[in-house]
Amino acid sequence: MNTILDVNRARMETPASSHLIHFNNAGASLIPVPVQRAVAAYQDAEYNLGGYETYDRHIADHKAVYDKIAELINGHSEEIILTSSASHSYGIALQSLRLKPGDKVLCCYAEYISNYMALLLQKKQGVEIVLVPNDSNGQIDLDALDKSIDGRTKLISLTHIPTSNGLINPAEEVGRIAKRNGVIYLLDACQSVGQIQVDVAAIGCDLLAATGRKYLRGPRGTGFLYVKKNLLPRMEPPIVDGWGGDWTALNDFQYRDGRSRLELFEKNYAALLGLGTAAEYAATWGMKNIEERNCFLANKLREALVAVKGVKVRDPGVRRGGIVTFTMAGKDHAAVIQDLRKKKMHVSLSSGVSARLDLGMRGIESVLRASIQYGGGD
Amino acid sequence: MNTILDVNRARMETPASSHLIHFNNAGASLIPVPVQRAVAAYQDAEYNLGGYETYDRHIADHKAVYDKIAELINGHSEEIILTSSASHSYGIALQSLRLKPGDKVLCCYAEYISNYMALLLQKKQGVEIVLVPNDSNGQIDLDALDKSIDGRTKLISLTHIPTSNGLINPAEEVGRIAKRNGVIYLLDACQSVGQIQVDVAAIGCDLLAATGRKYLRGPRGTGFLYVKKNLLPRMEPPIVDGWGGDWTALNDFQYRDGRSRLELFEKNYAALLGLGTAAEYAATWGMKNIEERNCFLANKLREALVAVKGVKVRDPGVRRGGIVTFTMAGKDHAAVIQDLRKKKMHVSLSSGVSARLDLGMRGIESVLRASIQYGGGD
Repeated sequence: MNTILDVNRARMETPASSHLIHFNNAGASLIPVPVQRAVAAYQDAEYNLGGYETYDRHIADHKAVYDKIAELINGHSEEIILTSSASHSYGIALQSLRLKPGDKVLCCYAEYISNYMALLLQKKQGVEIVLVPNDSNGQIDLDALDKSIDGRTKLISLTHIPTSNGLINPAEEVGRIAKRNGVIYLLDACQSVGQIQVDVAAIGCDLLAATGRKYLRGPRGTGFLYVKKNLLPRMEPPIVDGWGGDWTALNDFQYRDGRSRLELFEKNYAALLGLGTAAEYAATWGMKNIEERNCFLANKLREALVAVKGVKVRDPGVRRGGIVTFTMAGKDHAAVIQDLRKKKMHVSLSSGVSARLDLGMRGIESVLRASIQYGGGD
Repeated sequence: MNTILDVNRARMETPASSHLIHFNNAGASLIPVPVQRAVAAYQDAEYNLGGYETYDRHIADHKAVYDKIAELINGHSEEIILTSSASHSYGIALQSLRLKPGDKVLCCYAEYISNYMALLLQKKQGVEIVLVPNDSNGQIDLDALDKSIDGRTKLISLTHIPTSNGLINPAEEVGRIAKRNGVIYLLDACQSVGQIQVDVAAIGCDLLAATGRKYLRGPRGTGFLYVKKNLLPRMEPPIVDGWGGDWTALNDFQYRDGRSRLELFEKNYAALLGLGTAAEYAATWGMKNIEERNCFLANKLREALVAVKGVKVRDPGVRRGGIVTFTMAGKDHAAVIQDLRKKKMHVSLSSGVSARLDLGMRGIESVLRASIQYGGGD
């Protein structure tokens, strides 16, 4: 099966794909022409006019960034917070919830190092962290999740697509369980936004953390956090400035009502315009088309790898995305990566250090990761 | 008196100065040629090779950013933390100190809104915030500061150069008082770094917050925090990832020993290379030369303004820098700014909303601010 995505145009709009085989989209993807142009054009404007004066002239463009991201994930513009990465988004979300000692958070084996350390920081403050086991397919065990919820459970944290394997966790099913039990649901979508269709309304998450540089094809140092509108008023971030709060009296301040309460004023506006352009760019292809193409290509690679002697594909899950992980018997994975780089092919390594739960549990020291994407690496 | 700074070269290296009179360097300054080139060159490299692969090729350049900033402020490279702004730096510093209920922080009337709200956040957690009065010259009262210190005083916060007037607070004298009393000293240098010579060893501060976009002439969304080496091990930031911590056991993590504990992994590396280039660029002129030129120009402007009917210069202080603030009787300040913009002259507004302590205390609703800089606006 192929898709209706115009592969030739996608490649033409990804100039680096003419000389690279870039299978590192789960690290940072290749930036398409419109994103690069948006960033450069804004930087030129700042260069010629000054940073603040340029900002004032482009206020509508900056507002549109929120609209474009909201449209991509089917949220509202007022629910989008601009950040510098998914780890930043996840960290702010967790801190701003102000959980109390005795509160319980349920999380999954797919959690990335930064998420789990953020959870361990909560643990230091007396919050109980409970790991929900995987089912026999390697995805979060929905029954176990349901049964783990009790009166103290305040949050479910799920990683949509892990860093270290190709599965797609059943985010919508988790959303239904969260809703039925009235528990806040935080989805780490850092690998899924831009890779597959992500619809916050369909998933039913209250919070979603995402990054710009990975499958979304935006600039480095950009990300966003989705916060469902009814949750915004209770979010109290650890750092606030005049953008997020009002200095209401000499010795008092109030967080603002809207999304800005979770942001600081100062940002790299050029990069964020690039992020907005990346969201818009993905939407013009259609996320369903991108998802189909990514999954098609990844499955093709899995089939090819299975046939290679000594290679073992390591992707669990019922549903798999564009990330292909595998081991090579008797090979030093780090050396393989360097060899391939010389041949202009980019793959990466996922090691137990950053995925203790997933790889550790499966007794795998490291996997090679080929993260495929339409246009960028196919 | 003029200086040895080559004004013609400074202007040539600031292309926008050929068509602008940019007196908004306390907002965001005009970026010089080498900074713009460094950012653009790195973004081109990422565009052609991918974000992670480009990073790997430029590790030495990224390390050099810390060296260049350290050299500019006479600190050590291991004491520099890269951030997104001074507010970010100040917020992280304050949060990471983990002050306890009953601890006391002394601060000054020059504090900017973001600093004071960060302090009020501490207040909510039971920390006592004490405002040290100004002396008759409008700068922090050193005697009062000294006398305010008691056994509960854990931190002195000083704003080196306020947002809303042209004075330079006596940072070195405060450093001596802090040292003599064994109190941690946090200096907000967001307006002073790049404007005047700032030497952390001479000042004797333990923490220093700075931004890239103002007088330092770096890209937007960049900043840094200086943390004295002996203080680093006790800093525990509210957000941590695999860059700043080690996931030492399934249910435990440790902050790293060095500067990285206060950073997240993901950054806009292009912008940060620009920040490093900006620090290097300032150093090539010599901060003493830049300071002399900035102060010379600002004094010239003050003298000219004093002669204009209805204009009142509002800069207190014994020592004054490149920021000139004034009021115009019977004029709408906001309208003045728009009129001047049409004439390609950039000045800005400081209002009581963001400087409640300084302007509020002096009964001034707003001031016009002309922030002068060699090359950028002179």
